[in-house]
Amino acid sequence: MSEKIEKVCTTVLERVTPKKSERAKIEALAKKLEKTVTAASKALGVEAEVRVEGSVAKDTWLSGEPDIDIFMRVPTTIPRKSLGDVCLKIARKATEGSKQIERFAEHPYLEAIIDNVRVNIVPCYNVERGEWLSATDRTPHHTDYAKRHLNEQMRGEVRLLKKFMKGVGVYGAEIKIGGFSGYLCELLILHHKFFIKTLKACAQHKQRIVIDIENYYKGRENELQLLFKEPLVIVDPVDKGRNVASAVQPQKLYTFIAAARVFLENPKLNFFYPPETIALTVKELKQKLEKCGSTIIFLTFKKVDAVPDVLWGQLYKSQRSLRKLVQLNDFSILRDLPWSDERTLNMFIFELEQRVLSPIKKHLGPPLEKEHECEKFLEKHLKNPGTVFGPYIEDGRWVVEIRRKYTDAVALLSERLRDGGRSAGVAEQISQTLRKEFKIFVSDEIVEVYEKNSEFAKFLTEFLSGKPKWLEAT
Amino acid sequence: MSEKIEKVCTTVLERVTPKKSERAKIEALAKKLEKTVTAASKALGVEAEVRVEGSVAKDTWLSGEPDIDIFMRVPTTIPRKSLGDVCLKIARKATEGSKQIERFAEHPYLEAIIDNVRVNIVPCYNVERGEWLSATDRTPHHTDYAKRHLNEQMRGEVRLLKKFMKGVGVYGAEIKIGGFSGYLCELLILHHKFFIKTLKACAQHKQRIVIDIENYYKGRENELQLLFKEPLVIVDPVDKGRNVASAVQPQKLYTFIAAARVFLENPKLNFFYPPETIALTVKELKQKLEKCGSTIIFLTFKKVDAVPDVLWGQLYKSQRSLRKLVQLNDFSILRDLPWSDERTLNMFIFELEQRVLSPIKKHLGPPLEKEHECEKFLEKHLKNPGTVFGPYIEDGRWVVEIRRKYTDAVALLSERLRDGGRSAGVAEQISQTLRKEFKIFVSDEIVEVYEKNSEFAKFLTEFLSGKPKWLEAT
Repeated sequence: MSEKIEKVCTTVLERVTPKKSERAKIEALAKKLEKTVTAASKALGVEAEVRVEGSVAKDTWLSGEPDIDIFMRVPTTIPRKSLGDVCLKIARKATEGSKQIERFAEHPYLEAIIDNVRVNIVPCYNVERGEWLSATDRTPHHTDYAKRHLNEQMRGEVRLLKKFMKGVGVYGAEIKIGGFSGYLCELLILHHKFFIKTLKACAQHKQRIVIDIENYYKGRENELQLLFKEPLVIVDPVDKGRNVASAVQPQKLYTFIAAARVFLENPKLNFFYPPETIALTVKELKQKLEKCGSTIIFLTFKKVDAVPDVLWGQLYKSQRSLRKLVQLNDFSILRDLPWSDERTLNMFIFELEQRVLSPIKKHLGPPLEKEHECEKFLEKHLKNPGTVFGPYIEDGRWVVEIRRKYTDAVALLSERLRDGGRSAGVAEQISQTLRKEFKIFVSDEIVEVYEKNSEFAKFLTEFLSGKPKWLEAT
Repeated sequence: MSEKIEKVCTTVLERVTPKKSERAKIEALAKKLEKTVTAASKALGVEAEVRVEGSVAKDTWLSGEPDIDIFMRVPTTIPRKSLGDVCLKIARKATEGSKQIERFAEHPYLEAIIDNVRVNIVPCYNVERGEWLSATDRTPHHTDYAKRHLNEQMRGEVRLLKKFMKGVGVYGAEIKIGGFSGYLCELLILHHKFFIKTLKACAQHKQRIVIDIENYYKGRENELQLLFKEPLVIVDPVDKGRNVASAVQPQKLYTFIAAARVFLENPKLNFFYPPETIALTVKELKQKLEKCGSTIIFLTFKKVDAVPDVLWGQLYKSQRSLRKLVQLNDFSILRDLPWSDERTLNMFIFELEQRVLSPIKKHLGPPLEKEHECEKFLEKHLKNPGTVFGPYIEDGRWVVEIRRKYTDAVALLSERLRDGGRSAGVAEQISQTLRKEFKIFVSDEIVEVYEKNSEFAKFLTEFLSGKPKWLEAT
């Protein structure tokens, strides 16, 4: 390991490892919550085994950014469909008086902010390995596994890896991020032992990355290859049928790989601590938008009635559908993505080469070998008022030049989303909001929104920087 | 054969078969020319065997449009390189006082207009089959072969086929047309016996069309498949190593096939006798150009120092190169072709979706697996002033958004042709003319040229009709 890398890692490790006092505070809070939730569940007549899970339990949390996960392991006698509701009630009661936000993974759970610390109170069934009834049932087993295998040195390496991933924007299993979970980081370190070894291994990525710590598939690698199709496969030590990395988006994996390479070449603190984005002034924004030469379309809409994971799932799905719609109509997309503040402002963003296309385009018909199709093509286009030139023969096939249905991307989106865009593939809850109202801003028209929403202003500033922060820093 | 088809064919045959008086006049003129050329060659000390060849000799010429071909078969003692010059002298002397145009196929020959009839005086060597010294040496053998095998009924079928091919624009072996020669028509009839059978056979075209009248390759079809690669193969009965159709452009073959199909479905006289094009008025032209929505770029230039076959060869070659140039710069070409009046006006025409492109475009870098290439890509684009956005990662590869070199197709052409365009692949003689001067007209700016050149006006009117005449008529 180079001296430079070692220096950076030492500094980061020093910063991310909780000091005694912080640790004491968090552990006390966790213990207290364990008790309150136990009491609340008893009061509501549910026989739950309440445990601290996650990074606090495993001692892999990052100083300054703890997340306390309290799990209620309930008996399997509680029906699957009432699991969420029952436990939400308990969680609400246990955190009465604190700020509460309902969240949703596979079933609803509660997030509360207590003493400035985010606390997640999550239900699951108290089951043995392999008898999973809900996705969260594995968590206590993950905690046990990690506690059993991670020593203190490795916990430090986990902290480094997590902080690096946070810094380059690939940490977090929530749908919005689609990145690496804490447990995944722990398994990577269990396998590679060291943060830098993990980076080096991933940086060399050629095809797939496959890790099977418990050697479940030893001598049966073919089976493993067939079972899991994702580019990153980490077999879950507590469930050999599950890929812990199955939800990692390829984009996040690739970003991690690229960032790892650049870091190893040029190690710097700001991979872990990216500088805060300072939003462009309105004047700078306008100049930048004018100078870049592309057209950016912002399709904005208001509150969608869905918890963040559902909202982001629907945003991504809808964005993919709209991307297809825009591309099928021949617009060249440079970049496109959704954005949301998860409260009142949502949007789909399309950076296009041009807003307006030529009114005419070439439409290739069948090759002459296909005699019957040729006849049909001639029939259709000879008398079609949309035919501008042709039919004529080119490269052995019939061709016509026809009018485009849409020449303006804004008109295309406006028209196809007027009724909510279900036919264009927009997801249900988003469609409901669109049906009521949406607005389209083109390039610097977005200033109006930019000035009012500082979160968006930062996002747009980063979008217009056009490259990852960690690359900017090199 | 349907009644309708029969009726059309009877009418056409009646019109294209020379009447007694016309035949007498042409045959007399041919005989007379045979004598004059013989005398002239004797006077100049060349011992030539002078013969009438081609359609007049074979009695397959079309009433009203005879072409008299006079061949001088000279002894092989005359060196190859002086063959053209020697014979040109003889031909000039023989046609003194008539309008004379020097032409060029493999070697120069003379075209003269005598009594309103086009006469070609062409040299060749007097050789036995297979001992060819120049391409035209085969012609007398072709004449002999056709005379021997074509009976009167078949000569009528040849006339029908020729007239049909002329009507749909695929007749003529000259480079400008790249179509079917008269000899090729004769062979098609020798094989299929009837005009309509020829159309039907070609209309059913699926893959290649292969005809070997003399069965040179009987039992050795594989050899034939390997020897000739063209989509239409007609083995020359006087030279089994030669495909008579080798110079037929695929576009002409496909046009013939398509026209044959449409004719068989809907037989009409105007396949043979297309209506004369009436040029649009300037007002109509402007309306049409505005309404169509595309941008048409006319790059015009003056006289090129080359005989028609050479000129057209260079025009086509240069057009292909310029097409590539324009496409490589991302402009969407709808149609493109060269045009020339073979005298003072030449041009390259490009119909584009849009004259102007976005100043920005996406440039895909290497996929992450190619680590070394990625490094080079980052090095190149991170500090490049042409980089607008990025590098960023998308679909597992590095990507940048960069400025286009050319956003205006007119600017692209102007700049790349300023020095004659040799580097852009423009052929030598054309390049010489371009180096002196060229002009670019965009869409209705071409009115200026349109008003002055009626030949061009007709051409442009047809171009803007956008479909073959025979299709318009259906």
